[in-house]
Amino acid sequence: MTQSFNTVALIGKYQSPDVAGAVLSIAGFLRERGLAVWIEQGTASSIGLVGEFATATYDDIGVQADLAVVLGGDGTMLNTARRLSEHAVPLVGINQGRLGFLTDISRNEALAKLSEILDGRYTEESRAMIDAEVLRAGHRVFHTLALNDVVVNKGDLGRMIEFDLLIDGEYVYTQRSDGMILTTPTGSTAYALSANGPILHPNVGGIALVPLCPHALTARPVTLPDTCRIEIVLLPPHDARVHFDGQTRFDARAGDLVRVTRSPKDLRLLHPEGYSYFAMLREKLHWSATPRLP
Amino acid sequence: MTQSFNTVALIGKYQSPDVAGAVLSIAGFLRERGLAVWIEQGTASSIGLVGEFATATYDDIGVQADLAVVLGGDGTMLNTARRLSEHAVPLVGINQGRLGFLTDISRNEALAKLSEILDGRYTEESRAMIDAEVLRAGHRVFHTLALNDVVVNKGDLGRMIEFDLLIDGEYVYTQRSDGMILTTPTGSTAYALSANGPILHPNVGGIALVPLCPHALTARPVTLPDTCRIEIVLLPPHDARVHFDGQTRFDARAGDLVRVTRSPKDLRLLHPEGYSYFAMLREKLHWSATPRLP
Amino acid sequence: MTQSFNTVALIGKYQSPDVAGAVLSIAGFLRERGLAVWIEQGTASSIGLVGEFATATYDDIGVQADLAVVLGGDGTMLNTARRLSEHAVPLVGINQGRLGFLTDISRNEALAKLSEILDGRYTEESRAMIDAEVLRAGHRVFHTLALNDVVVNKGDLGRMIEFDLLIDGEYVYTQRSDGMILTTPTGSTAYALSANGPILHPNVGGIALVPLCPHALTARPVTLPDTCRIEIVLLPPHDARVHFDGQTRFDARAGDLVRVTRSPKDLRLLHPEGYSYFAMLREKLHWSATPRLP
Amino acid sequence: MTQSFNTVALIGKYQSPDVAGAVLSIAGFLRERGLAVWIEQGTASSIGLVGEFATATYDDIGVQADLAVVLGGDGTMLNTARRLSEHAVPLVGINQGRLGFLTDISRNEALAKLSEILDGRYTEESRAMIDAEVLRAGHRVFHTLALNDVVVNKGDLGRMIEFDLLIDGEYVYTQRSDGMILTTPTGSTAYALSANGPILHPNVGGIALVPLCPHALTARPVTLPDTCRIEIVLLPPHDARVHFDGQTRFDARAGDLVRVTRSPKDLRLLHPEGYSYFAMLREKLHWSATPRLP
Repeated sequence: MTQSFNTVALIGKYQSPDVAGAVLSIAGFLRERGLAVWIEQGTASSIGLVGEFATATYDDIGVQADLAVVLGGDGTMLNTARRLSEHAVPLVGINQGRLGFLTDISRNEALAKLSEILDGRYTEESRAMIDAEVLRAGHRVFHTLALNDVVVNKGDLGRMIEFDLLIDGEYVYTQRSDGMILTTPTGSTAYALSANGPILHPNVGGIALVPLCPHALTARPVTLPDTCRIEIVLLPPHDARVHFDGQTRFDARAGDLVRVTRSPKDLRLLHPEGYSYFAMLREKLHWSATPRLP
Repeated sequence: MTQSFNTVALIGKYQSPDVAGAVLSIAGFLRERGLAVWIEQGTASSIGLVGEFATATYDDIGVQADLAVVLGGDGTMLNTARRLSEHAVPLVGINQGRLGFLTDISRNEALAKLSEILDGRYTEESRAMIDAEVLRAGHRVFHTLALNDVVVNKGDLGRMIEFDLLIDGEYVYTQRSDGMILTTPTGSTAYALSANGPILHPNVGGIALVPLCPHALTARPVTLPDTCRIEIVLLPPHDARVHFDGQTRFDARAGDLVRVTRSPKDLRLLHPEGYSYFAMLREKLHWSATPRLP
Repeated sequence: MTQSFNTVALIGKYQSPDVAGAVLSIAGFLRERGLAVWIEQGTASSIGLVGEFATATYDDIGVQADLAVVLGGDGTMLNTARRLSEHAVPLVGINQGRLGFLTDISRNEALAKLSEILDGRYTEESRAMIDAEVLRAGHRVFHTLALNDVVVNKGDLGRMIEFDLLIDGEYVYTQRSDGMILTTPTGSTAYALSANGPILHPNVGGIALVPLCPHALTARPVTLPDTCRIEIVLLPPHDARVHFDGQTRFDARAGDLVRVTRSPKDLRLLHPEGYSYFAMLREKLHWSATPRLP
Repeated sequence: MTQSFNTVALIGKYQSPDVAGAVLSIAGFLRERGLAVWIEQGTASSIGLVGEFATATYDDIGVQADLAVVLGGDGTMLNTARRLSEHAVPLVGINQGRLGFLTDISRNEALAKLSEILDGRYTEESRAMIDAEVLRAGHRVFHTLALNDVVVNKGDLGRMIEFDLLIDGEYVYTQRSDGMILTTPTGSTAYALSANGPILHPNVGGIALVPLCPHALTARPVTLPDTCRIEIVLLPPHDARVHFDGQTRFDARAGDLVRVTRSPKDLRLLHPEGYSYFAMLREKLHWSATPRLP
C-alpha cells in the first residue's frame, strides 16, 4: 500500500549554507526523475539559491508535497516535525555527518536510497508526538508540539524546583528536583536516556516521566499510557524553564501549569527497506553484536 | 456494567494455617449474604477445615465461581493468578499484614469492602500476564504463565551468563550479564524496580527488559510493545536458572531458548471504589504528598 | 583531649528573624554558665537585638571565639563553614526544624546537649572542604571554599556543555553533559546523591566527580584522592554556571578553567557524645533498622 | 628508588597450554639477559615444559623471586595476587588478548616493555587487597584474600537474602537484597561497575559497598575508609554464597558472619613508564577523547 510521489520538498538544516551541495544534488536528481521539486524558503535563502528551483513555505509543503526530504541531523528533523505537525506529509532524513536516530540515510547513499523509496520500496513508521501547552491562571499562554520531549527545568536561579504532578486530573505526588523530562518513545533515546530514563520502543503507546536529580531517593521513571493527560503545576516560589525538543523554550512562572497529551497527529517517517529500529539502537548505543554462525 | 456474584471462592496463603480465622470469618459473612461459598482445597486442608463449607479445586473455581477472594500477600495473588490464568474469574486481594501492590484491602476492612464489591461498587482492572516457555532443540520443555516477571538468571556456578536477544525473530544483541528480567507492568514495581527498571503503568501495553549487572555499560532497560515475541537464547557454555514470578524455577541449559509473549488472557482484579493506582504507588514507594489547600 | 570554652558565638540563619527566640534563649543559658557570649552581627541585626549581648563579625568569631553555635539548617552551616574557613573555631549545629546532616541537635534538646558539650562530653569530627577557583586566561577571577560541592552546570541557554577534565594536569576525558558535581564526603549526601553519586564516609580522603546527564552512557561517578588537583576547562562555545554549596554562583565563560583542590583547613564539627554518622544516615535516608534481640 | 632484578618468575594462565609460546619466548629472552628464570610449577605442567627452565612453587616465587611476570588476563592476575599475597614480590601483567585493567602490556610489546622495566624504567603502583574471613559461631571457617571484591550473594534458592551490616562493630542497617559487593578500588572497575558502583581511584583509601538489587529504593553505594572492619551477618533463614574475586566460593549459612578488612599487605604492580591509570580507564570504558590542538 505505497503511495506515489509527485512533488518532493527539500528542507535543509537551519541557517546552514553548507547543505547547499547536498540540496542541489538531490534536487537535480529528483528533477531528473521528472518530479516537481520544492525547496523550503528558509533553506533556499540560507544556501543562496536563486531561481533554479521553486521555493515553498512549510505550510505549502505540508499541504501539497508528497514527501519531504530533510537534510541535516536529528535536530533538523525535530524542527521539521514540529513545523509540519499539522500535516500528513511523510519525512525522510538524510544525515551529512554521523547517522542519527531519525536521520538514518547517509549522504553518500542518499540518491540510491531515495530511488528505492520513490520506487515504493520503503518502510513507513509512525512516531507519536506530544502536544504541550502552558496555562497561566487558566489561560493558555504557550502551545507547541514536540517529537522528543518536554523538559520542565529549574529556572534562572539554578535552584531545585517543586511541583505537583497530576495524571488525568488526579494528584500523584509533589516532587522537588531539578526538573522532569516528559518523553515520547522517540525522545527516550535522546536527552531522557542521559538521565537514566528507560528506552521505549516507538510502538509502545507511552510517555515516560523521568525525574532530573530528584530530592527523594524513591523517585523513579514512570511510563504512562499516552492516552493520559499529564500536568505539572509549579509550586511557588519556583519559576521554571520549559524546553521543547531542546529547541524552543518558555519561561514559566510559579503557579503555571504545563499540560502534555499525545498529539492526535503522528509523524510519518519513511525508511529504506531493511530498516531496523533494533539495528539502529545497537549501532548508536554500541551494543555488542557477536557475529555467530547460523 | 457490573456482574452479579452468586458463587464466591476463598483462597488462602499457601500452607498457612494462620489464615484460618480470616477465611472462616469471611466465609461466614458471605454465607450470611446468601452466597454459595467455596474454599479452595489446599486452603481448606491447611486450615484444617472440616465439612462446614464446600471445597473446590482451582479448576472448579476458575470455571464456576463468580469471584475469588485471595487472602495473603502479593505472593499468594501471583500464585492464584497463575493457577486461574485460563479462566476469567475476577480476583480480590485481602492482605493480613502490610498492604501489597495487588492485595490492597486490609484485613480489618475486609467485610466492609467486600460488601461494597458484592453490591457492585467496584473498579475492575485488567492486568497483562506473560506466557513463557522454554524450548530445547525446538521442543517445548517447560511452560508457565507469570503475572510479574520471568527472570533469566545466572546458574549454579554463579558466573555471568551470555545470551542472544531476539525480538520477533530479529537478532537484537548479545548480552553478558547476571541475567535479564522480563517484566509486565504489574511486575515493574516488584523485583525489576530493585534492578533500576522503569515503572510501567498497568495500561501501558509493554513488556520491559531489565538487565541484571550487564557487562556493557551501555545496556539499558528497554520497554517493548507487548505484541512482541521476545526470545533469549543461552549461549554455550552458560546454563541459567529461569524464575517465574519468583515462585517457579526451571534450570535451563546452554542452547535453550526462553520465549516470552503476552498471554491472550488478562488477569481481572477488582478493587473497592476509590481505588487509585497512583495513590497505591505513592503509599508503597513513600512518594511525597504535601497536603495543600484546595 | 578536650578544650575549654570561654567565649561562645551564636550564628543564626541568614536574615531570619524567627531564630530570635532560640538565639536569646541559648545566649541567656550560656551567660548563666558564666561564658562570654557573642552574637554574629548579621544575626543580631536580623533578630533586632539591641544591646543585651555583644555582637561580633565572622572574623572576630573566627579568631577569638572558642565555639560557634549555629542555629538554622544545613544551609546555615554551609554558609558559616565558608565564612569561618580560615579559622579553627569548632561549630555545633542546632536545627529548628527537621534535623539535618550537619545540624544534628534538635531545638528542644539544645540546652541539654550544649551543656554536655561545654562539659567536655563531645565527639569532634573533621570535615574536608574544597578550595575552588576559576581562572580566565591564567588569572584567578573567582575564589571561594565549599563544604559540600562545586557544581559546574549548563549556563543560561540551558544546553549541554562540553569540557575537558584534567587530573593533576593530565588530560582525562572530554565530557558533554549538563554538568559535573565535584563533591566532598560531606556533600556526597546532598545534591550529589540525587544525581546518583556515591556516598563517601567523611573519613574517606576523596573527592567524587558525579556527571549530570552525561551524553556518553559510559560516564560514571569517579572518586579521586583528595590530594588531586582537579580541573575543568570549558570548551567553546559553552558558558557555564558554577555553583558553590548551592549558595554562591559564578558565571563562567568558554575557556575558563575551574580548579578544585582540598582546602588545607578542615571544618571542625562538635557533636554530642553518642553521635553516630551511620545512625544519622540511617535516619535521614530511611534505611531499614529491624530491631533484633541481642 | 628502583630495585635490581636477578630472579624472575613466569606465571601463566591456569591450565592453559596456549600460553606456552609466550612463556618460552619470554623465558628465553630473560635468560639471554643473564637472569635466573623460574617457571611456576602449575604453568610448567600445563604447557608441558620439561627441563629447560627451573620450576618453582608460588611460595618459592614469593620468597625468592625479584619479579613475577604474569601471562594471561585479569583473572590470572587476580589469582596470582591472592597466591602471592603474603609476599612482596612485584608483578607485571602481560595480556595475550585484549588488554585488561591489570594486565596492561600487550603480547607483542612484551619484550620491549620488560626490557624497560628490567632497566629500571617503570612505575610502581600499590593496590590494596581485602582480607576476608567467614565466622560461624565465633570460629573462623574460611579465610582468603581478594584483590577485587567479596560478593555476598543469594544462595542456591535464588531468593533475596537478608543481613545486618556492621561497621567497626556498630550496627548500620538491615538489608534485603540479592546481595552485596564489597570492593577495593581495583575491583571498582570490575563486577561492581556493572552493579552501578562508583569508580574508586587506586589511591583512595576506601572500600565500597555496592548493594545488588536492594529491596529498599533508598539503598545506595557507600564508600568507607579502608581502615574499617566491615561485617555482614546473614539473618536466618538465609543462606548465601560468598564469592572472592569471582574465583573462590564459600557457601555460607544463616548466622554466619563475613568479615572484611584491608589486608596489611598491598599488591605491588609494575607498569612500563608512561602508564596512566586515566588513559587505561578512558580506553577500557570508551570515554571520549576529542583530540585538540595544543
